[in-house]
Amino acid sequence: MRTIKVFDTTLRDGEQMPGVSLPVNYKIQIAKQLDKLGVDVIEAGFPSASKGEFEAVKEIANLGLNAKICGLARVVKKDIDQAIKADVDIVHVFIPTSKIQVEHTIKKTPDEIVQLSVDAVEYVKSHGVECMFSAMDATRTEMDFLKRIYKAVEEAGVDIINVPDTVGIATPFRFYDMIKKLKEHLNVPIDVHCHNDFGLATANTYAAVLAGADEVQVTVNGLGERAGNAPLEEVVALLYAEGFKTNIRMEYLVETSRLVERLTGVKMPPNKPIVGENAFSHESGIHAHGVLKDARTFEPGIITPEMVGHKRRIVVGKHAGRHQIKKILEDAGYVVDDEKLSIIVQKVKELGDKGKKVTDLDLFAIAESVLGEVSEKDRIINVDEVTVLTGNKITPTAVINAEVEGERKVTSAIGVGPVDATFKAVTELLGRKIKITEFRLDAITGGSDALANVYVTVEDEDGETFTARSAGADIVMASFDAVIKAVNYLMLKKKRKK
Amino acid sequence: MRTIKVFDTTLRDGEQMPGVSLPVNYKIQIAKQLDKLGVDVIEAGFPSASKGEFEAVKEIANLGLNAKICGLARVVKKDIDQAIKADVDIVHVFIPTSKIQVEHTIKKTPDEIVQLSVDAVEYVKSHGVECMFSAMDATRTEMDFLKRIYKAVEEAGVDIINVPDTVGIATPFRFYDMIKKLKEHLNVPIDVHCHNDFGLATANTYAAVLAGADEVQVTVNGLGERAGNAPLEEVVALLYAEGFKTNIRMEYLVETSRLVERLTGVKMPPNKPIVGENAFSHESGIHAHGVLKDARTFEPGIITPEMVGHKRRIVVGKHAGRHQIKKILEDAGYVVDDEKLSIIVQKVKELGDKGKKVTDLDLFAIAESVLGEVSEKDRIINVDEVTVLTGNKITPTAVINAEVEGERKVTSAIGVGPVDATFKAVTELLGRKIKITEFRLDAITGGSDALANVYVTVEDEDGETFTARSAGADIVMASFDAVIKAVNYLMLKKKRKK
Repeated sequence: MRTIKVFDTTLRDGEQMPGVSLPVNYKIQIAKQLDKLGVDVIEAGFPSASKGEFEAVKEIANLGLNAKICGLARVVKKDIDQAIKADVDIVHVFIPTSKIQVEHTIKKTPDEIVQLSVDAVEYVKSHGVECMFSAMDATRTEMDFLKRIYKAVEEAGVDIINVPDTVGIATPFRFYDMIKKLKEHLNVPIDVHCHNDFGLATANTYAAVLAGADEVQVTVNGLGERAGNAPLEEVVALLYAEGFKTNIRMEYLVETSRLVERLTGVKMPPNKPIVGENAFSHESGIHAHGVLKDARTFEPGIITPEMVGHKRRIVVGKHAGRHQIKKILEDAGYVVDDEKLSIIVQKVKELGDKGKKVTDLDLFAIAESVLGEVSEKDRIINVDEVTVLTGNKITPTAVINAEVEGERKVTSAIGVGPVDATFKAVTELLGRKIKITEFRLDAITGGSDALANVYVTVEDEDGETFTARSAGADIVMASFDAVIKAVNYLMLKKKRKK
Repeated sequence: MRTIKVFDTTLRDGEQMPGVSLPVNYKIQIAKQLDKLGVDVIEAGFPSASKGEFEAVKEIANLGLNAKICGLARVVKKDIDQAIKADVDIVHVFIPTSKIQVEHTIKKTPDEIVQLSVDAVEYVKSHGVECMFSAMDATRTEMDFLKRIYKAVEEAGVDIINVPDTVGIATPFRFYDMIKKLKEHLNVPIDVHCHNDFGLATANTYAAVLAGADEVQVTVNGLGERAGNAPLEEVVALLYAEGFKTNIRMEYLVETSRLVERLTGVKMPPNKPIVGENAFSHESGIHAHGVLKDARTFEPGIITPEMVGHKRRIVVGKHAGRHQIKKILEDAGYVVDDEKLSIIVQKVKELGDKGKKVTDLDLFAIAESVLGEVSEKDRIINVDEVTVLTGNKITPTAVINAEVEGERKVTSAIGVGPVDATFKAVTELLGRKIKITEFRLDAITGGSDALANVYVTVEDEDGETFTARSAGADIVMASFDAVIKAVNYLMLKKKRKK
């Protein structure tokens, strides 16, 4: 079983992504997480790009991580000096080699390009530092020239060469052949760097490994320029599934993906392989029924959610079968007979047909209505009046008049914004019984009158939680509505469980 | 040049995705868009799943579209009858064939499975309707049994067979071999259906086409269960790039992706291939410099943004070079000399090093500060006081006291929420001169005190636009700040251009 090294470039390619820019403290957090994950090399940045980038690379190089730290440099002394001054373990030098890039950027002859590359490699090695060499746009470079330049840097003492598919035009079959030819021609280890312009970055990276590549360049969540780079989580899971070894601790894949989402602000969709919210979720009746018996029926089975730090979810939906709905209700503490279950299943289907996403909350609301009206006494809070105020010369303030466990209470609270003030007022009304642990708001696109989707999670003193959703054109009132719903349903859920 | 047919299952696989549920009018909108896009077949749903789904399929089948309409059915008469009653052109029957699925779901012998399949195909064909047959979980089914069952349905008169990689465990090399063997064994056309559990759906679909597949099943944005299905936009662009023909009008790819994003609520990340916001964006200095000379330097070049209905963007960022910054400023009407440009470039780098995303707005703010203070007289609006109110018994109201073009004005307006009320008040103050055309709010995750990122686009009577961003813990005030900024910068931009 061959061990494939993982070279992470999230802090370099990922950070070059339009819209992403990471302050030093975020870069350090990501570097530490990558080290915990077990990547072999962290490309920390391009030290000569700016003073700030130089300092970030230097700080990461001095964190004492297990991973080797690499810095990018053009084949010029100034860049290489900056990288070495930043204390990196590996200097990654690159030069364009395809006709189109050479013509429009460096404008050198093939001989000059080879000489510059050899000089750069020798210069790096003369400082006792490891050296990686990339022929930029390799997949659009003539094979004869590629063989020549890679052989020349091999002879100059390079430690590893990288074959970048800079504009993402490789296919698995072509890339396999290319790497195989280079592998036969060279003795140094080969690393590959794939872009995802046609959605093939993972497949091409895997094809290269089959052809003999020793190391793979990847980024967390596939971040990078244009359509991004080969995603670490997909490549690592695929290599595992196909019998290759890596040094990655796969149980941290989801945690790493979430951290990078949070720090870069680039959110992955639910259908992102391996780490996406839906990667191990099942909704439709037939599938979920099978999964409840044996998850391998409708999952690859080779990778379980636990192996990558994920969770399996059975989701209510219009295709939901009796089995699923019964399980979700039972898990939440409801006891329903067959007849009532049939009515609930019917109502869920009707709701789905109307195009409504059926959440757990919707299901519980249906269950409550079928099992009998929610009595006022089951509610911990009954709101009478709420007023919220903000402005450029006003501290955001919320005033609530409500009955809390039968007692009339009026309170006001201030916050950093109107939603925050409202939540503070609710928390004050409830005392220490219930905490608001999470607030989520879906992105809004369109106009200022578009619907806002709000999710609020509350937790009681026993650690029991409930997440409620609310939607409305008024962001503040939708948030308020969600928190009140969550609190009252949490109480109901507890009562049903007893 | 072979023509590959495109079979879209967005309305079936996509709609089975946890969290997605489409009302009939949305399904019809998507079906019409798919028809405009030129897909050959639209799988409109699973008519026996529910009454609502039956009616949706029937309505789509009767829209008079050019695309053929297909309905899914188990190999049972009840399902097939429902599909035929829904007026579909094609009934797509399926049965599990892998050991693991058979054992946990239908529990039949191989002979029974073949017989049920043959009966189903004959039953469909006896109604004069086209028939597609799928051996569910084909990639985990023994090849001998696959050959046997596909041959049996071929002899029963099936029109096309489908080979589904139901749990996404195929690789391009294995799938190529599998399709090649089936192609040699069968005479009917072959369709493939790939899932993206390991990020290989596009690659596997392409491998199947190389091996002789005649049709591909895809979904818009790769929607579908778990990690989703092969994305239409990636497969179609790749087939084009590799010299295959499809009937897709590629110029509608981005429009279709955006429509499906909006109607399903599943947002694609910026690094989504072909249709993502960044697919043709360039930020880093070296890349963008090349792209300004010839886009093919750092893009695949085979697909231009215009071909898929996209736009190329040059994005300011910490890696931005002089060339880019100068171009963006000139496009916006600024005239800067070399010395001032150097100061602006330096400030952009400093901002980037601090981890700030440098937007056009930030760049213009820097440019303004370098080129000289913004005079009050350049502003169309100077706000003195703003107060915003909402609640459960209060109509959302905003009151603004401001100087508009030198004239003191006070106005109040109501709206569906506090942001809407604020925008209405601003619009009222400005008269007909300026419209607020878009409001965007990034998703918020965390607590109620998390920063909200707001983007507002305004347009003046000449159709000139400006997008401003603002961030703050108070969603309402951040939105207000963004709209005021946008209005004032739009005025500045116009003055500079004159």
